[in-house]
Amino acid sequence: MKLGAIARALGATLEGDPELEIDELQPLDEAGPRALSFVSNQRYLAQLQVTRAGAVILGSGVSGPGCAVLRVDNAYLAFAVALGLFDRPVLPPLGVSAAAQLSPTARIGEDARIAAGVVVGDGVTIGARARLHPGVVIYPDTVIGDDFTAHANVVVRERVRIGDRVILGPGVVIGGDGFGFLPLPGGGIFKLPQIGTVEIEDDVEVGANTTVDRATIGTTRLARGVKLDNLVMVAHGCRIGEEALLAGQSGLAGSTIVGKRVQFGGQVGAAGHLEIGDDVRVAAKTGIDNDVAPGRVIGGYPELDVRLWRRVSAAVQRLPELLRRVRRIERMLGDTAGSDEPKAR
Amino acid sequence: MKLGAIARALGATLEGDPELEIDELQPLDEAGPRALSFVSNQRYLAQLQVTRAGAVILGSGVSGPGCAVLRVDNAYLAFAVALGLFDRPVLPPLGVSAAAQLSPTARIGEDARIAAGVVVGDGVTIGARARLHPGVVIYPDTVIGDDFTAHANVVVRERVRIGDRVILGPGVVIGGDGFGFLPLPGGGIFKLPQIGTVEIEDDVEVGANTTVDRATIGTTRLARGVKLDNLVMVAHGCRIGEEALLAGQSGLAGSTIVGKRVQFGGQVGAAGHLEIGDDVRVAAKTGIDNDVAPGRVIGGYPELDVRLWRRVSAAVQRLPELLRRVRRIERMLGDTAGSDEPKAR
Amino acid sequence: MKLGAIARALGATLEGDPELEIDELQPLDEAGPRALSFVSNQRYLAQLQVTRAGAVILGSGVSGPGCAVLRVDNAYLAFAVALGLFDRPVLPPLGVSAAAQLSPTARIGEDARIAAGVVVGDGVTIGARARLHPGVVIYPDTVIGDDFTAHANVVVRERVRIGDRVILGPGVVIGGDGFGFLPLPGGGIFKLPQIGTVEIEDDVEVGANTTVDRATIGTTRLARGVKLDNLVMVAHGCRIGEEALLAGQSGLAGSTIVGKRVQFGGQVGAAGHLEIGDDVRVAAKTGIDNDVAPGRVIGGYPELDVRLWRRVSAAVQRLPELLRRVRRIERMLGDTAGSDEPKAR
Repeated sequence: MKLGAIARALGATLEGDPELEIDELQPLDEAGPRALSFVSNQRYLAQLQVTRAGAVILGSGVSGPGCAVLRVDNAYLAFAVALGLFDRPVLPPLGVSAAAQLSPTARIGEDARIAAGVVVGDGVTIGARARLHPGVVIYPDTVIGDDFTAHANVVVRERVRIGDRVILGPGVVIGGDGFGFLPLPGGGIFKLPQIGTVEIEDDVEVGANTTVDRATIGTTRLARGVKLDNLVMVAHGCRIGEEALLAGQSGLAGSTIVGKRVQFGGQVGAAGHLEIGDDVRVAAKTGIDNDVAPGRVIGGYPELDVRLWRRVSAAVQRLPELLRRVRRIERMLGDTAGSDEPKAR
Repeated sequence: MKLGAIARALGATLEGDPELEIDELQPLDEAGPRALSFVSNQRYLAQLQVTRAGAVILGSGVSGPGCAVLRVDNAYLAFAVALGLFDRPVLPPLGVSAAAQLSPTARIGEDARIAAGVVVGDGVTIGARARLHPGVVIYPDTVIGDDFTAHANVVVRERVRIGDRVILGPGVVIGGDGFGFLPLPGGGIFKLPQIGTVEIEDDVEVGANTTVDRATIGTTRLARGVKLDNLVMVAHGCRIGEEALLAGQSGLAGSTIVGKRVQFGGQVGAAGHLEIGDDVRVAAKTGIDNDVAPGRVIGGYPELDVRLWRRVSAAVQRLPELLRRVRRIERMLGDTAGSDEPKAR
Repeated sequence: MKLGAIARALGATLEGDPELEIDELQPLDEAGPRALSFVSNQRYLAQLQVTRAGAVILGSGVSGPGCAVLRVDNAYLAFAVALGLFDRPVLPPLGVSAAAQLSPTARIGEDARIAAGVVVGDGVTIGARARLHPGVVIYPDTVIGDDFTAHANVVVRERVRIGDRVILGPGVVIGGDGFGFLPLPGGGIFKLPQIGTVEIEDDVEVGANTTVDRATIGTTRLARGVKLDNLVMVAHGCRIGEEALLAGQSGLAGSTIVGKRVQFGGQVGAAGHLEIGDDVRVAAKTGIDNDVAPGRVIGGYPELDVRLWRRVSAAVQRLPELLRRVRRIERMLGDTAGSDEPKAR
């Protein structure tokens, strides 16, 4: 692809030769003379001076290296668009593989691509242009919209409802039983049948091996545009608001409600029956133990406002020193009531 | 189903019309006039006043809304029983699918339901009424009891032993190799063959994508009635006691022993070679680093008694303030030994 | 197997009867008279006195029980070697199952063992002696070396490169899309196509249900000898150095670089765009938020040197007491400026 054509596609000002042939997009330190690269994170500016890239995408403030430059207002957005120019998605072959097992009562829309080893149960409805990679299992009576992509070995259990343009990564499980058990006073544990379901709205994407449990009753809901990373756990009865983004290995206990546009870092956990307001942002590894008002930025366990949490985190390493200082003060004052032994165990 | 029949099934006192037709169980805020609902968590009492449910299950202390009431001693237990009345479990078709691959040396009990894409290895024994959903893989020489349910894409590796009435959620892996590697002094890493096994006793249930590793030698054991939630990690050689409940994304390092009826919140981790006594309860995200005496309730990392941990958690946010107060005292006393700079780094 | 033969295989000095028949390796508390056992962890020395094992492997410092002893310099290494003597690995049958689906353009090396339900895409190359267990899915154009083992239901996506002697546990996903989304100012979320790949070098092993995402551009890399435990999450663009060991449920955010021989405990998390130097060791549940110099041993969140972190962890439980002591000092000094109410919220 010629650099001039890329510049036009990105709406970029080209500083360099429009006839330059570009074969690929690569990071600065892996790029060769036929690669386009970019910088958005300050951290990598030093690499810009030594890159062997043929061209780079740069924002207006950044001075270029020797190579060609595609000058744009927003380097990250231009990079995002450029990715699409070089994308070569892999689809299952058009049609239904002879090695797939579709129930005669399943209804599949036009232009489906259904690979070997796929199993679709009784009464399932799937819209147009479905892409089911090998080993996908759809249990009975599930209803799925158009442009559905399920990567290999996805499992969607019975009666789940899925909207349009949903993408499920490899190994995702939707609609598994919620963790509902009632230990009985006299011993034994009663399993609560999980008779609810999951509803996934349009434009949701779910990462590899993430699990979203069905509700005990009612519906576990991922609203329009929700994106879950890998190995995330959504328990029974949770509702996640539009365009919320939950990073890897995060987990929600049962019946918690997450607002619109909420963002979780990795390994966040939230207790059950909470309400987390719209636009809340949560630092990685936070443990959320209380309702959270809209717009708050939080960290720690239990959660604090993120600035307080950062101050606390900086202060906590001074605790051993602080103990010594207080002991010294007590000695100066002749006060022996404060001992060295913990009293509060 | 008529409300009168439901009342009889639950042993409830009916306050309302026994002829009312009930089609489903729903949460208060999703219930319509043909739905039965319930309240057990105080948090949702306000919804009771505005629900459109046709009937609700209530304990003796709670005054009802306008609709019919099923009055019981224990609302949660009655709800649990009611779930069973509305459960419509989905089973694979009776018999063995032509698209399943069963070794000729595998022995399968009566009334099996074995779906397409299932693979059962040489020398496997499975009891009566097995339910193997699509894509389940059972490696050779594994022995499984009666009433076994394996959801889609479960993997059980070789020589594992599984009791009666065990349920494995989608994507569960039982018997994967333990993480046993010995870095050699001169470089290179020696892989310890993991020649032990896993034993799962009766009435165990395991959630989606959870992994239970085989022991290096001997047995990783899930005792009778253990319930594991999704994405839990049980390392090689662990033993989990009867009726223990481990919530989502919890993990045990190798050879740790968990007592009977222990309960873990989500994202708990335990170090290896520990003994956690019977009836211990563990708050979410706790990091267990020491043996734990029976009956303790713990939280934090490393673990503390839960009440101390809660006091510490409340106190920790006052640390920046405390540092200022101690500095102020030092100034009042003319003491300059306690500086603002960390000394203990 | 006779004990004398085992002694020779381990280079051990035999204290006992070389004709003793040994059938298995077992832990001290499960071993019977035809079992060999061992002790390396001090914690289990007491069991040595009451074991019913026929023989034990012991280091030079440890006095034996009544049974036969295989005396060695390094008991753990001798045990590791002994495991190999009793290992009975389970392989898929030699050849390609009639129920596998191999693209006509896939090239598979000699002596392959490819089980039922395996799907191998167009243009895939796999070296000699591949062992693909049931349900493995290899997307198109992936290139894999010799002696590859993929356990049941592994997924390797398109264009991934894998070296020799790599082992992937059940349910592993290699090459899933990275979590790359750009919320747009006017609403909506732009999905960044993930056009990079994953490269896995020789002698890597990956545990059950772990996920390694493809890079946005360039390569996510697991260098030679890396070992990942179960349910680990490696995000797009990370690079993990030679012989690094990451324990269960650990996670790396995007573009983080992990040095050679680094060791993570369980449930560790690292933020994105970090550099973690060679030979760093990380305590379980640590949250790494900054670059880490080579050789450091760290714990806590954010990470501290492990000794400071342990002192801090011990001190933190004294915080409620410390607050009382400072208040007492303030009262002695007649200072009322330090109140009981938090000021720093």
